Amino acid sequence: MICAIDATHDPNLRSWVESANEAKTDFPIQNLPLGVFQRLGSAETPRIGVAIGHQILDLAACHTIGLLDALPEPVQMACVAPNLNDLMAMGRSASLPLRHHLSQLLRVGQDPITVSQALVSMSHMQLLLPAQIGDYTDFYASIFHATRVGKLFRPDNPLLPNYKYVPIAYHGRASSIVPSGTPILRPSGQWKRPDDAAPTFAPSQLLDYELEVGCFVGVGNALGQAVAIAQAEDHLFGLCLVNDWSARDLQAWEYQPLGPFLAKSFATTLSPWVVTMEALAPFRCPAFARPSPDPQPLPYLTSSANQEHGGIALTLEVFLSSAQMRQQEIPPLRLSHSHFQQMYWTVAQMLTHHTSNGCNLRPGDLLASGTVSGMEAGSAGCLLELTQRGTQPIRLPTGEARSFLEAGDAVILRGYCERDGYTRIGLGECRGQVA
Amino acid sequence: MICAIDATHDPNLRSWVESANEAKTDFPIQNLPLGVFQRLGSAETPRIGVAIGHQILDLAACHTIGLLDALPEPVQMACVAPNLNDLMAMGRSASLPLRHHLSQLLRVGQDPITVSQALVSMSHMQLLLPAQIGDYTDFYASIFHATRVGKLFRPDNPLLPNYKYVPIAYHGRASSIVPSGTPILRPSGQWKRPDDAAPTFAPSQLLDYELEVGCFVGVGNALGQAVAIAQAEDHLFGLCLVNDWSARDLQAWEYQPLGPFLAKSFATTLSPWVVTMEALAPFRCPAFARPSPDPQPLPYLTSSANQEHGGIALTLEVFLSSAQMRQQEIPPLRLSHSHFQQMYWTVAQMLTHHTSNGCNLRPGDLLASGTVSGMEAGSAGCLLELTQRGTQPIRLPTGEARSFLEAGDAVILRGYCERDGYTRIGLGECRGQVA
Repeated sequence: MICAIDATHDPNLRSWVESANEAKTDFPIQNLPLGVFQRLGSAETPRIGVAIGHQILDLAACHTIGLLDALPEPVQMACVAPNLNDLMAMGRSASLPLRHHLSQLLRVGQDPITVSQALVSMSHMQLLLPAQIGDYTDFYASIFHATRVGKLFRPDNPLLPNYKYVPIAYHGRASSIVPSGTPILRPSGQWKRPDDAAPTFAPSQLLDYELEVGCFVGVGNALGQAVAIAQAEDHLFGLCLVNDWSARDLQAWEYQPLGPFLAKSFATTLSPWVVTMEALAPFRCPAFARPSPDPQPLPYLTSSANQEHGGIALTLEVFLSSAQMRQQEIPPLRLSHSHFQQMYWTVAQMLTHHTSNGCNLRPGDLLASGTVSGMEAGSAGCLLELTQRGTQPIRLPTGEARSFLEAGDAVILRGYCERDGYTRIGLGECRGQVA
Repeated sequence: MICAIDATHDPNLRSWVESANEAKTDFPIQNLPLGVFQRLGSAETPRIGVAIGHQILDLAACHTIGLLDALPEPVQMACVAPNLNDLMAMGRSASLPLRHHLSQLLRVGQDPITVSQALVSMSHMQLLLPAQIGDYTDFYASIFHATRVGKLFRPDNPLLPNYKYVPIAYHGRASSIVPSGTPILRPSGQWKRPDDAAPTFAPSQLLDYELEVGCFVGVGNALGQAVAIAQAEDHLFGLCLVNDWSARDLQAWEYQPLGPFLAKSFATTLSPWVVTMEALAPFRCPAFARPSPDPQPLPYLTSSANQEHGGIALTLEVFLSSAQMRQQEIPPLRLSHSHFQQMYWTVAQMLTHHTSNGCNLRPGDLLASGTVSGMEAGSAGCLLELTQRGTQPIRLPTGEARSFLEAGDAVILRGYCERDGYTRIGLGECRGQVA
């Protein structure tokens, strides 16, 4: 079931953590995203925390000083684990009471003296991957991206006949998923210019980012047990941002017939904060309205609840900051923005399709959306599209041109939900700099 | 470095475990494959064992009675873990002394009274997955398979231009890897007959097996640190058999442009015993000799050691047993046999290619070879090839015809190494029955 709007979404709620009440904060008290952190440079056991303004509420510390005593014992245990997997596995019966409890602890009216003992400054902490990710699946759910990229690779055949029926996806590499801030090394690999007789093994010349939204699986399903579309939302835990770095030259040469492999597996960056499905309740919206000649999804991917509320009104942005820009103190340049509600498939449809053959998903598995591109040219979620495979370079404020990423380029993804009558919430930042 | 032949391979060695001395056993004292087991139907913590004839030497029990005391403490600790990951991570400096020690414990001359306390009967045990598999990668390394399958899917373009340069692979699904003996549920999914206007969601009609060899990664590599071909063997732990079950109708409809997804992710079966690279030392052979018009591999995939000894002389077999055959007590029918040394890429080349972009492999990761098919029609490692996409059904001894798998069909993969002057060793059995 799609999460309901409740008292924790009340726009009048304010936190005694002052920075959580700033107008443009990603982490007001209505958000309460979960993540995993440790002190910068320490090797201490990672702890679960909740982002609130510029601070983190340390759940392990909360537990030590008795602030979680009101929660059921298994939820308390999950809160002191070194990652979110246990909490994810428990589903709404854990995440909903936890959200209500955290909202109480952090709101104005609560005596801050005790709770503030469990607050740490986000800037002193290293943010880690939120979960142990067993399997990572990458979808291809933007029809605008699929069409535009298809045109570049297959001019006469941009959108394949299966696209409007199948939520196309491939298995990604879990081992090379890294948290925001991890430097990105330019991969080497085989690539071939059209006129070359044979490929070369050399550093990629066409390094790209991909703006994506990731969804963590909460409750898993057993092997052989498909999850019906009506139950799919119960298995979604929350969202983060994903940069699926791509080496376009490696990709073009290797991808047939089995799909992308080394062009993607050198690194995938995640934003550290998981915005829960509970927090997103006010921003649910209808699924993408297919233009009339398009077929409707097959029945196993169809429900009226999904049709009416399966979308998520989430605005996404990509910024680029070159080394020269940072030297000259020029702020990052926004390259594009797009809207997650324009994806051809909802997250629930992705999950149901994924399990429709009996495939088991485990708590902490990651489903990424694929590049989120919109209809308009300025809404393309990767350089391949934005620069038309490098033929129309972007001009940076320093006068530099960019066809693809260069050394020192930092790519910053951001995402937020806004709606009249509700408090804006954000996904934070997903950042990676090319080494 | 490729493992050397040593005293543990001496064909004159015999075990005091009598069944290990039988002529056709897969598990003589020269093999000593490692696996993970628990008592049938129990929920006890899994233990590491060594197959010897029809018995298992229980390493946790060995440790308890002091039989591992001669090994370094970290190796002892790895031997009492619930899976092989720790041992895999330690590399040859652990696996080689362990092999020598086990060979001593089990050979004639050793007093069996103490050691036999740690022996259990294999038939009373449930064999589990040998390792926690972080990522599973499936290659496509048989040029005969790629060409024959390519012809069926792309008649005018069977072998793509990248094939002879790139060890083609895709990321597989780790969560649905199951141990030998696990029932296989026929998946449902989208498929479309050529003349249908739209796809159907229904149980797969074209269920197939794929005969593959799996290689477990031993020592891992850090993200960003490619493994050179000269070091690749140091990262290989050992081999098992893999049945990469495939729904051909789902595959044909979904695989473009991002490769196979639900057509494969419903189940992948592994044989339980990992035959170590040490055990395989006598059976190393030259890499596949490319016919003269073929390009040589690029330099990063080339070494003289790999050229001369990178192959593994391993014979593979597929057997089918239908429900009717079992009723009539007809033994399984051998459908095909093939030779692993005919693969276009060696396992070392697969590993080096996989890490060439900096992708990190972790101990326990699984690299599967792709379907092992040979040159001759009778050596095809899947029904898609054997029956020419179902157009030339196989006749079973009961008179039944098989284009693809039917309910009750059991598929049994076997593999063994034989060489004059050495004792035959086997990989055991990889079995799965369609529910």
